[in-house]
Amino acid sequence: MIYVTRREVFSSSHRLHNENLSDKENLELYGKCNNPNGHGHNYILEVIIAGEVDEKTGYVIDLKKLKTIIIENIISKVDHKHLNYDVEFLKGINPTTENFVIKIWDELVDKIPSGKLYSIKLKETENNFVEYKGK
Amino acid sequence: MIYVTRREVFSSSHRLHNENLSDKENLELYGKCNNPNGHGHNYILEVIIAGEVDEKTGYVIDLKKLKTIIIENIISKVDHKHLNYDVEFLKGINPTTENFVIKIWDELVDKIPSGKLYSIKLKETENNFVEYKGK
Amino acid sequence: MIYVTRREVFSSSHRLHNENLSDKENLELYGKCNNPNGHGHNYILEVIIAGEVDEKTGYVIDLKKLKTIIIENIISKVDHKHLNYDVEFLKGINPTTENFVIKIWDELVDKIPSGKLYSIKLKETENNFVEYKGK
Amino acid sequence: MIYVTRREVFSSSHRLHNENLSDKENLELYGKCNNPNGHGHNYILEVIIAGEVDEKTGYVIDLKKLKTIIIENIISKVDHKHLNYDVEFLKGINPTTENFVIKIWDELVDKIPSGKLYSIKLKETENNFVEYKGK
Amino acid sequence: MIYVTRREVFSSSHRLHNENLSDKENLELYGKCNNPNGHGHNYILEVIIAGEVDEKTGYVIDLKKLKTIIIENIISKVDHKHLNYDVEFLKGINPTTENFVIKIWDELVDKIPSGKLYSIKLKETENNFVEYKGK
Amino acid sequence: MIYVTRREVFSSSHRLHNENLSDKENLELYGKCNNPNGHGHNYILEVIIAGEVDEKTGYVIDLKKLKTIIIENIISKVDHKHLNYDVEFLKGINPTTENFVIKIWDELVDKIPSGKLYSIKLKETENNFVEYKGK
Repeated sequence: MIYVTRREVFSSSHRLHNENLSDKENLELYGKCNNPNGHGHNYILEVIIAGEVDEKTGYVIDLKKLKTIIIENIISKVDHKHLNYDVEFLKGINPTTENFVIKIWDELVDKIPSGKLYSIKLKETENNFVEYKGK
Repeated sequence: MIYVTRREVFSSSHRLHNENLSDKENLELYGKCNNPNGHGHNYILEVIIAGEVDEKTGYVIDLKKLKTIIIENIISKVDHKHLNYDVEFLKGINPTTENFVIKIWDELVDKIPSGKLYSIKLKETENNFVEYKGK
Repeated sequence: MIYVTRREVFSSSHRLHNENLSDKENLELYGKCNNPNGHGHNYILEVIIAGEVDEKTGYVIDLKKLKTIIIENIISKVDHKHLNYDVEFLKGINPTTENFVIKIWDELVDKIPSGKLYSIKLKETENNFVEYKGK
Repeated sequence: MIYVTRREVFSSSHRLHNENLSDKENLELYGKCNNPNGHGHNYILEVIIAGEVDEKTGYVIDLKKLKTIIIENIISKVDHKHLNYDVEFLKGINPTTENFVIKIWDELVDKIPSGKLYSIKLKETENNFVEYKGK
Repeated sequence: MIYVTRREVFSSSHRLHNENLSDKENLELYGKCNNPNGHGHNYILEVIIAGEVDEKTGYVIDLKKLKTIIIENIISKVDHKHLNYDVEFLKGINPTTENFVIKIWDELVDKIPSGKLYSIKLKETENNFVEYKGK
Repeated sequence: MIYVTRREVFSSSHRLHNENLSDKENLELYGKCNNPNGHGHNYILEVIIAGEVDEKTGYVIDLKKLKTIIIENIISKVDHKHLNYDVEFLKGINPTTENFVIKIWDELVDKIPSGKLYSIKLKETENNFVEYKGK
């Protein structure tokens, strides 16, 4: 078993806001992350595939193909976008890093051609990050 | 002459848009950076002070004081904000990195208690950055 | 299960020295790390919490709260301190990175309000680091 | 159980090429990585040892010793070399990152004096990396 | 005057070798960098343009255009190549970082559409780098 | 003119303290940096040499030689040391980053065999750094 990682970077804006709570509750809960006009981040995404090495190719997965899959399914949809308004696969979701990473997992898990999706890491800032390995 | 640097990080959203141009012209000019709902970055700001070393303190400038000055005048106003709508000192400005760095300079240049402001560096992404040394 | 990380940085000095060994044995064992006047590092601390996402908040843990917990219990006690002399929770401990990370775990493990402490990573230099996940 | 990491860096060239395939198949499979004259990388190697803390030393493993083991067995053999032609322990191997990391594991696994080899991480670029934890 | 930087990364192999010297002299001069089969690096290239901010665009130079210019003129020619054999604009050149950075300057200096080329930085490893600002 | 940089890292402890001031004045001036038992940093040192490229070698300066000069004159004297007590060339100096970088310049300026010393950069933390280019 080998773990292969592809790293991609994208720049999005978002606002933390739970529509089932009052404005006052949202402000207490999220503080400056609740700013009505939003704020943004350079997100760093790491997609980790686990699998055996193919004897012919010497690859678990061709990283050129994995890059294309990540760009088509994630980066092209979230880069230079507002996560609350512009992204189909995030509709109705409060875009905390935790909720976001689960949705990225769901978008990618069935599209990996060799090996299988093992983990998604998502860095929001140089000090805050999450990892998700599926259910 | 010694050059002393303080680095701070903040997270903002913005939209590149020139109000004197048509929507079509803006889209042609700025591409994905013109997305109506905006996008965002973790900006890295470096403020560089040039001066002689004070014999008593061994400092050009006390970096604790410089940090406070940067936070009060810049970070508290732009962090977790939308640069087009939420920031008084950017009102009416199209927030390209170039325009933004000049405005940061203008906010700080008269508030440095020892040495003088030499340069401002501003990184928008790991691949794109600007530097400004005043007129 | 999601893993949420908060990174903090602090600057301390220390000396590797086992009081049950002779000076000669200590020097042989620790080499330059045994320098009587000590040396120091910019330590990078990563605290990783594992848990389910709270439906209301979208958080495993509020990272603003986790930051406060880390600063109150660890950073305020070790930053700009000498680990052999100035830190109550390290009294009697030879501050190798291994011993240090276990003590940080012990200080934090009962103070996490949601999710639970999963791992502590501690980088002493850009080339040397440790991770501890409890007993 | 504590996990201790030592990081080392080296600079090598290589060419991805499977000798059992035709030139055309190799080019289709590896693209620019199949360039006949090769290309190169600054590889970042992380060797992770797992073990209990020794009560006398406060170490899982003395990182000065681990550094020497890594340099003698790996770095001195691959740094400033061509991985396809110059490295005895890679003879007959198509040097994908996956195949390379397995060979590094095999070279090191029996040479760790305390604790045991837990994982090898190998970064080929800032966007592509692998991890191997043995069979 | 504002300085705008675009960073790009590429992976090449090379061999330091002066054809006017004997093999013995080359080995004495370049040591392991003279390895006949070559070695390689992940080079980090920074291209810095100096200029006034255009009032209409808010740019010194459109970084999307600068990126295209760097890729067409430099990256597409050196990435995944051997600098001694595969690169037309380096023919006959001993590819030290110094010689390489001058040639990159010469390739780019006449192709900058707004502002002018101010400096080229080239990092060969995390410890070794050069900068060139023209004659 | 080309600027060539060599980066080295070292780990030291220090205490900011002006012996001509009272304890109270020192505490007010330096705050936590005045802790009697000291604290420490992983310093990052960059030594920049400016010169013409030698036609025979293709170098401004052989970086292997520059590395040796930096290690012999600086690193071997400050790494794993206390800057206030253990370093001959810092005797009587209050080791602020500003005072330290000037002393490093003085130690190196006459020992550069080709090109000449252009600048010294010294990073104390990821947020605080200085640069000195001589008188």
